[in-house]
Amino acid sequence: MSSRIWSVDEHLDDILASVRPLEPIELQLPDAQGCVLVKDVVVEVALPPFDNSSMDGYAVRVADVEGASEEFPAVLTVIGDVAAGSAGLADDQAVGPGQAARIMTGAPLPAGAEAVVPVEWTDGGTGEGPADTMRAHSGAPEGATGEVRVHRPVTAGAHVREAGGDVEPGALALAAGSVVGPAQIGLLAAIGCATVVVRPRPRVVVLSTGSELVQPGEQLAAGQIYDSNSFALTAAARDAGAIAYRVGAVSDDAETLRATIEDQLIRADIVVTTGGVSVGAYDVVKEALSSVGDEDEPGSGVEFRKLAMQPGKPQGFGSIGPDHTPLLALPGNPVSSYVSFELFVRPAIRALMGLEDVHRPTARARLDTEKALTSPEGRRQFLRGRYDAEEGTVTPVGGSGSHLIAALAQADALIVVDEDTTSVEPGTETDVILLR
Amino acid sequence: MSSRIWSVDEHLDDILASVRPLEPIELQLPDAQGCVLVKDVVVEVALPPFDNSSMDGYAVRVADVEGASEEFPAVLTVIGDVAAGSAGLADDQAVGPGQAARIMTGAPLPAGAEAVVPVEWTDGGTGEGPADTMRAHSGAPEGATGEVRVHRPVTAGAHVREAGGDVEPGALALAAGSVVGPAQIGLLAAIGCATVVVRPRPRVVVLSTGSELVQPGEQLAAGQIYDSNSFALTAAARDAGAIAYRVGAVSDDAETLRATIEDQLIRADIVVTTGGVSVGAYDVVKEALSSVGDEDEPGSGVEFRKLAMQPGKPQGFGSIGPDHTPLLALPGNPVSSYVSFELFVRPAIRALMGLEDVHRPTARARLDTEKALTSPEGRRQFLRGRYDAEEGTVTPVGGSGSHLIAALAQADALIVVDEDTTSVEPGTETDVILLR
Repeated sequence: MSSRIWSVDEHLDDILASVRPLEPIELQLPDAQGCVLVKDVVVEVALPPFDNSSMDGYAVRVADVEGASEEFPAVLTVIGDVAAGSAGLADDQAVGPGQAARIMTGAPLPAGAEAVVPVEWTDGGTGEGPADTMRAHSGAPEGATGEVRVHRPVTAGAHVREAGGDVEPGALALAAGSVVGPAQIGLLAAIGCATVVVRPRPRVVVLSTGSELVQPGEQLAAGQIYDSNSFALTAAARDAGAIAYRVGAVSDDAETLRATIEDQLIRADIVVTTGGVSVGAYDVVKEALSSVGDEDEPGSGVEFRKLAMQPGKPQGFGSIGPDHTPLLALPGNPVSSYVSFELFVRPAIRALMGLEDVHRPTARARLDTEKALTSPEGRRQFLRGRYDAEEGTVTPVGGSGSHLIAALAQADALIVVDEDTTSVEPGTETDVILLR
Repeated sequence: MSSRIWSVDEHLDDILASVRPLEPIELQLPDAQGCVLVKDVVVEVALPPFDNSSMDGYAVRVADVEGASEEFPAVLTVIGDVAAGSAGLADDQAVGPGQAARIMTGAPLPAGAEAVVPVEWTDGGTGEGPADTMRAHSGAPEGATGEVRVHRPVTAGAHVREAGGDVEPGALALAAGSVVGPAQIGLLAAIGCATVVVRPRPRVVVLSTGSELVQPGEQLAAGQIYDSNSFALTAAARDAGAIAYRVGAVSDDAETLRATIEDQLIRADIVVTTGGVSVGAYDVVKEALSSVGDEDEPGSGVEFRKLAMQPGKPQGFGSIGPDHTPLLALPGNPVSSYVSFELFVRPAIRALMGLEDVHRPTARARLDTEKALTSPEGRRQFLRGRYDAEEGTVTPVGGSGSHLIAALAQADALIVVDEDTTSVEPGTETDVILLR
């Protein structure tokens, strides 16, 4: 145990200085959701790849429809259909003077045509009044032939999406560091990328320690409580973007714990333990991990510290095993471990993912409470609260006790009371960390 | 095709009036993450279940340590250890006058003891100065015997967490309608719930239609483009909380499309299609779905509408198959389908989940742009933008073209221009829908 007291920021800085982003991996597009791009993605094919119609209508020559009106329509000969997915008109026909091709949204503009007249500006080939739809090709194939009356003129390029109008080859589609969300996946698919090189989701192994822990659903004997930390932190790790494995509770036996952790290293990019880090005679995490590190390797091994914070004073951090897998040993009280996870593990997970911003959003909010909050001098306190963005206020829920997990489930923010402050009056502006 | 024009709100109201939350299911706690509780969860066992120590230290009688100081310590006989997970002292011993039991955080307060003295306020049984830790039981079992010198007095109940101090049996742990996040999972585990009754995640089947669509990674022929909608919307459905299945692109053939959709119904709580809903001669979604509904059942079948919005004017909504599975038929342009998903499918998914608030957060923001935006009269326009929460501004990205998927990937908000507005001057306060 290091004897000096570490500040919250010193401990976090130490963690973030040690945790490196994971090695890149090539993933199928859908599997890359939520991951960070490692390299710039450059467009190889223009988007759209060819001039195409933005409407269902008729591809025409501009001169042929000049001055057209409902009273004096331009009458054009329909020489065929251009469906989406086709290469153009049959037999490479072109639209000549006095001619039109029926064209669908997304279909390539045929040779000779300069613009598209929407079907609603024509009689749809029916010889009657203005159309509101085309006749379905399956039921009325004659719609691709005959005559069409055009009721309005168009300018060159009207209702035509130009090749490369969205992106040109060589353009930057997405920059390295972009997070691959639904819209980015859409863009990558649109430019033809089936796979993408990203940092993978970190695999987080969560295990709680304590001989008093029983799995939910079982019967409690005297002196026993339910294991909640392994459940809460596995869920929190998933929420942070990780693939999380819940190992469950390990009893207070150093040899068992060491063997369990060594077993788990094969599937861990980071290990999180809870409990057994304080000053008790059975605090086996400290005992077990003091001998897991490789003494010959600088930076290897787990160091246990006292932090100037409440809750969460005892903390362990270091690396273990042949791959120097980062390990964070959190205190065992449910609220202490949860707050510690938010402050230290979540940023570490997001650093492993290669995200630039690893932190939760913060805000300033007025303390909405009846009496002053008290806080120990020299320790940064994190109280559970509910944040009201509209009012700009935060209301404490539950007390400062580190076992008040019922209140934690009602909270959506942490109220931060800094080291030098021992009392916060109602109405004071204070820092809050937003948990959602 | 209904001939009247629907407003965005009318269409959304129609969808939300038809979509019912999914039937509840009992799930293992980790599988319920992100789901909505169907019933109130009431506490059955007190939390904590027994009086226990909040510190590593010594369980004592208050009178024995009255007036104790480092100069004049109270010397007590250590009669044993109380470890976490044990039922108390061995052989049901009690702490008598002049005695102490060494006790660990979370261990039950033994009979006879009234408070806990932290180890740091004692000599830790060493006979030397103030301790900063207990000697590990494994290395120094004699620490559970001998004498301890106590340097400070304590009041009754000090460093003791009372049984039921967090929650009492009969108390409401979580109300019906709560979303099961990490902290809620922690609370449910802590009170012994191994399973929980929630509404399951909806299964969303996404398929794009269009003979022009080719899968990313393949070679484009003339007139072809890459399928991006099925990728983007599957990812967006996952993002909304659903289990999403991407069926990929179906060609413009009504029979194939109908057969594919009927096949998929077995795993669909909601079906989303893109493309084929407009006025073209090959718009097969309309053609295929007009005959899927059961005419004898009220509310069955899919209706195609024109909406007063841009992009996303043509939309289909209804239900299909024996279970009246909701189906939303979105337009095929990538940006139209994405915006339509945000406005209509995402709320439907969240309604199926049983969430109370199905909508994205919104904000008011000043338009940060050099020239006025134009918008068609009588249509609600949704432009892509970047929102700056600090400045309270939104900046348009890309134009209003419904194919500008490259710009969509840079956006984090939709700028809403209402039906009556045809021009928005720079600096105007406007509504934005926040996409992240």
